[in-house]
Amino acid sequence: MSQNPFSFRLEARSGDARAGVFTTPHGPVHTPAFMPVGTHGAVKAMMPEQVRATGAEIVLGNTYHLTLRPGEGLVQKLGGLHGFMRWSGPILTDSGGFQVFSLPNKEISDRGVQFKNEVTGDAMELTPERSIEIQNALGADVIMAFDECTPFPADEKLAATGVRRTLAWMERCVRAHARPHDQALFGIVQGSVYEPLRRRCAESLVAMDLVGYAVGGVSVGEGHELLCRITEFTAPMLPETKPRYLMGVGLPEDLVAAIGYGMDMFDCVIPTRFARSGVAFTARGRIRLTNRRYRRDAFPIDVSCECAACAGGFARAYLHHLFAANEILSAILVSIHNVSFYERLMRNARAAVLAGRYEEWRRGFLSEYQSTPAAE
Amino acid sequence: MSQNPFSFRLEARSGDARAGVFTTPHGPVHTPAFMPVGTHGAVKAMMPEQVRATGAEIVLGNTYHLTLRPGEGLVQKLGGLHGFMRWSGPILTDSGGFQVFSLPNKEISDRGVQFKNEVTGDAMELTPERSIEIQNALGADVIMAFDECTPFPADEKLAATGVRRTLAWMERCVRAHARPHDQALFGIVQGSVYEPLRRRCAESLVAMDLVGYAVGGVSVGEGHELLCRITEFTAPMLPETKPRYLMGVGLPEDLVAAIGYGMDMFDCVIPTRFARSGVAFTARGRIRLTNRRYRRDAFPIDVSCECAACAGGFARAYLHHLFAANEILSAILVSIHNVSFYERLMRNARAAVLAGRYEEWRRGFLSEYQSTPAAE
Repeated sequence: MSQNPFSFRLEARSGDARAGVFTTPHGPVHTPAFMPVGTHGAVKAMMPEQVRATGAEIVLGNTYHLTLRPGEGLVQKLGGLHGFMRWSGPILTDSGGFQVFSLPNKEISDRGVQFKNEVTGDAMELTPERSIEIQNALGADVIMAFDECTPFPADEKLAATGVRRTLAWMERCVRAHARPHDQALFGIVQGSVYEPLRRRCAESLVAMDLVGYAVGGVSVGEGHELLCRITEFTAPMLPETKPRYLMGVGLPEDLVAAIGYGMDMFDCVIPTRFARSGVAFTARGRIRLTNRRYRRDAFPIDVSCECAACAGGFARAYLHHLFAANEILSAILVSIHNVSFYERLMRNARAAVLAGRYEEWRRGFLSEYQSTPAAE
Repeated sequence: MSQNPFSFRLEARSGDARAGVFTTPHGPVHTPAFMPVGTHGAVKAMMPEQVRATGAEIVLGNTYHLTLRPGEGLVQKLGGLHGFMRWSGPILTDSGGFQVFSLPNKEISDRGVQFKNEVTGDAMELTPERSIEIQNALGADVIMAFDECTPFPADEKLAATGVRRTLAWMERCVRAHARPHDQALFGIVQGSVYEPLRRRCAESLVAMDLVGYAVGGVSVGEGHELLCRITEFTAPMLPETKPRYLMGVGLPEDLVAAIGYGMDMFDCVIPTRFARSGVAFTARGRIRLTNRRYRRDAFPIDVSCECAACAGGFARAYLHHLFAANEILSAILVSIHNVSFYERLMRNARAAVLAGRYEEWRRGFLSEYQSTPAAE
């Protein structure tokens, strides 16, 4: 048996914020880390080399979408998700739970979730065992437990059911996991907005000594304030010595808050989705490139940015034009920029933690970022 | 007054096929040359650096589309078309004639063409003077005369009117041209399928000693055989010492035929348009990646291709999946591949001319390319 390929080294703390290195079979992930989302095995509108050039070290794939199409068997045959999508670095797959719990017609039981395949129309089922089986076939470095993602808002009874199922399913996930030697299984803390439920869930998961821990059931409509409160009281329930992943978060202001509470890893569709609708992130806040005010603007999106779009000299006016003309290059350039913005945000946060001045840096970032609220 | 920045050096002939170097203010164009089309100031789904990596030396912009949006004044203010689209190599703009003659509602007179602006709804006019004014503002290295593009089929009377207008408008274009020192104005031979009309048009244009000559009024539905016949009898009417541009052509089989008749420059939307619909070019013919036969195909589009898509190891099965999932990356990867295919075709044709064996090379290419007619 080879040495455990996973390790997490905590390099520094600044307040509760952390800087670390999470080692995986496909390379290191320096934390805080943002994972661009590659739902169907592709980060939207970006070549893998362009994703890497942003500084991203790890990307995310969606189990639900990939089992529906093209099917995990085909992905496995073609070299696993790494070979299939030509990404040689670390990959994380979610469990499919979040997606199936978001479906309009599904039946949830202790066994799992029944739903209709939206591609073929066939009846389908996702269970802890099936989710892990799919993720074992996809072959990501990090795989996620199949949990019950409690909707928001949820009363305490519903949230407690979610915690009970999440814990029972966690044990089934651990038993089903066929590749613990090269795939790290992360547990997910549920419990909605209820601190005692989050604590009960976290304590049970921590007792299972998993490779990493996620906070789930957030980014489901609770808003910035509640997200912060949940993260603030849940993060300290997780082991100091393991990576901590806040799922599906978020906007830059969410990320810098969550890092401040001690979270290490993040994923979100916002940078790429916003890009396709013409919204770009800058040090001074978001700008909507489709706005007429940018029609004659000769500056790049952000003069302080070194991404291929900004350093390449593409003017805001050019991007405005590309959106007006419905040119695919608009999505390409702004996706590159937005993911670069997120990755730089992580690097700057990490540098601030290593320098022991995270909170000062965070305030400085927010002060500039929120200085022009009407920029959109 | 600085030296004339334009020159054409004929390096070799093989039969009627030619290899040359057309020098422009933004660098050399080795011929035969294929120009990817950047209608709105962007080659669809490709970054300029990706276009350059295919080997393309010159790209085309559309005057009609760019005057409508964003307007040539804005393009000029932002560094001309080179600066606007971040393409530092040579650019050619068409005159807008082909587009306005294709509009359903337009009025043609000796003065020019009246039509409705499809963006704003306003009445607009394109005349020789206005087309050149726009192209002077866009600032491409090569600009095209505003000609009457005769539809197909056309009787001889209609074609003769087209030639008369084209010649009269040519003189107005020359008079209107404000930047002959750094923009080369090419004339366009019209005359439909009628050799005497083509000859009359060509002789009059040649007498004007223009920098280059184009054959227009092709790729308008006449088909491969008629295209070949027109090209075969028109090419010899053009000066040996000037670049010869066959407009809007075409499929690989059209290009290798036209090179054989002595044409040097080409443009066409086919490689990028086909790419977006899932059709890729290979040495053994076209393949339709959306076809189910490629669902499990682990090979790249063309194992003999060194483009970023093929050398990058993206499997046909992956591309099939990207098209099924409607991922933008499908268009990006196949556009890169198809333009690379066209540019390699030009390089190989050029090498064959330089080696004095063009016809042998052309037959070998077609023999392999047409070997699997059912591949789609």
